[in-house]
Amino acid sequence: MTTPDVRALVFDIFGTVVDWRGSLIREGQALGQRLRLDADWARLADAWRAGYLPAMARVARGELAWTTLDRLHRMILDEILPRFGLAGLAEADRAEFNRAWHRLTPWPDSVAGLQRLKARFPIATLSNGNVALLVNMARHGGLPWDAVFSAELFRAYKPDAAVYQGAARLLDLPVEQVLMVAAHPSDLDGAQRAGLRTAYIPRPLERGAGGWMEPVGDRRFDFSADDLLLLADQLGCA
Amino acid sequence: MTTPDVRALVFDIFGTVVDWRGSLIREGQALGQRLRLDADWARLADAWRAGYLPAMARVARGELAWTTLDRLHRMILDEILPRFGLAGLAEADRAEFNRAWHRLTPWPDSVAGLQRLKARFPIATLSNGNVALLVNMARHGGLPWDAVFSAELFRAYKPDAAVYQGAARLLDLPVEQVLMVAAHPSDLDGAQRAGLRTAYIPRPLERGAGGWMEPVGDRRFDFSADDLLLLADQLGCA
Repeated sequence: MTTPDVRALVFDIFGTVVDWRGSLIREGQALGQRLRLDADWARLADAWRAGYLPAMARVARGELAWTTLDRLHRMILDEILPRFGLAGLAEADRAEFNRAWHRLTPWPDSVAGLQRLKARFPIATLSNGNVALLVNMARHGGLPWDAVFSAELFRAYKPDAAVYQGAARLLDLPVEQVLMVAAHPSDLDGAQRAGLRTAYIPRPLERGAGGWMEPVGDRRFDFSADDLLLLADQLGCA
Repeated sequence: MTTPDVRALVFDIFGTVVDWRGSLIREGQALGQRLRLDADWARLADAWRAGYLPAMARVARGELAWTTLDRLHRMILDEILPRFGLAGLAEADRAEFNRAWHRLTPWPDSVAGLQRLKARFPIATLSNGNVALLVNMARHGGLPWDAVFSAELFRAYKPDAAVYQGAARLLDLPVEQVLMVAAHPSDLDGAQRAGLRTAYIPRPLERGAGGWMEPVGDRRFDFSADDLLLLADQLGCA
């Protein structure tokens, strides 16, 4: 295999760059403390995230008109709260809890890894999160993006090829010079089908210690590294 | 007048944040030195920029399908080169000279002013330049954008209301909470018509010492400041 001629990197965000589950559990605990409520915040975080694929599938099938991820998150939250004994949560508290997705914490290697990668390559998000969510998250976590690309710009969710190809077009690069970085093989499959290069970063703690990971199977990626600092090494970044 | 409730700032780029004319003259001089050519680089810079409004108007009228600013710049360059005795410029040199727009130098106050503004507000470009141009320019000049918004995302050029309203939508803010910062009253007119707040930053050196400036007339802006540091003062940034 020849070495790919990589000119820019685009990143999946939830699970790849930030720890959504740990962050949501902490946000839930803080909410519980403030309102003197108790709930199984870990199971709530998992249920919230579990609503994500079905909600996006409704948009993809055209059952729902284009809807931002903020709005989908809120619909899922409203649906699951009763299951956790939180049916009485007030509107303002729901809105504030929904914004927890704007405050997710980066994995320990993320900021330093992105800084090293950015010194050599343009780096951008390529997430199903909406632009405002990604901008707020970057400001909160110190993520040094050169550009914020989102499914929202293309009105289609990954793994729709329009999203990956749209990012390459905005970067004014041929798809084969753009490297998609993700912790999820299915996202990298979508990128590969669209012609992009792929880098797999397993995140074994995404669903908690010992939690489920999407299996890699017999897939082949252009790069595979245990974190973003090691990816920077592989790409020859100082 | 009540104080506007500003939640995010979007910036015009050419002339407002970067010195296109001085930068193009220097790039022309460097090209001339390399190829042992002589030309009136200042007049060439002015002619190049003068082609900008008519070229965008052709897109707005539908005479040209959507065309990025990189491509419009190149069409204008090809058209004007013969007038400056440069008809023989080779393809690779034209392509490289056209990329001068990706390397424009910030005004002396721009980077420090943006850093102060960014500490308090999300800041984004809102330029007719295409995304790749703006990303490369930010990396070259150290412009610390939270997001890169461009006419390209909306397939319409300023002052089309779709561009200003599109930026507010991506920021998930009502238009009246978004402040458009520009050196050109006509751009601020467009923002105002679309419902945004406006900040005028005169740039008397944009077309060289003593050069033409778009007249302000009897317009009223929400803010007016001589540079971005003074705008940061007015907005209460530390």
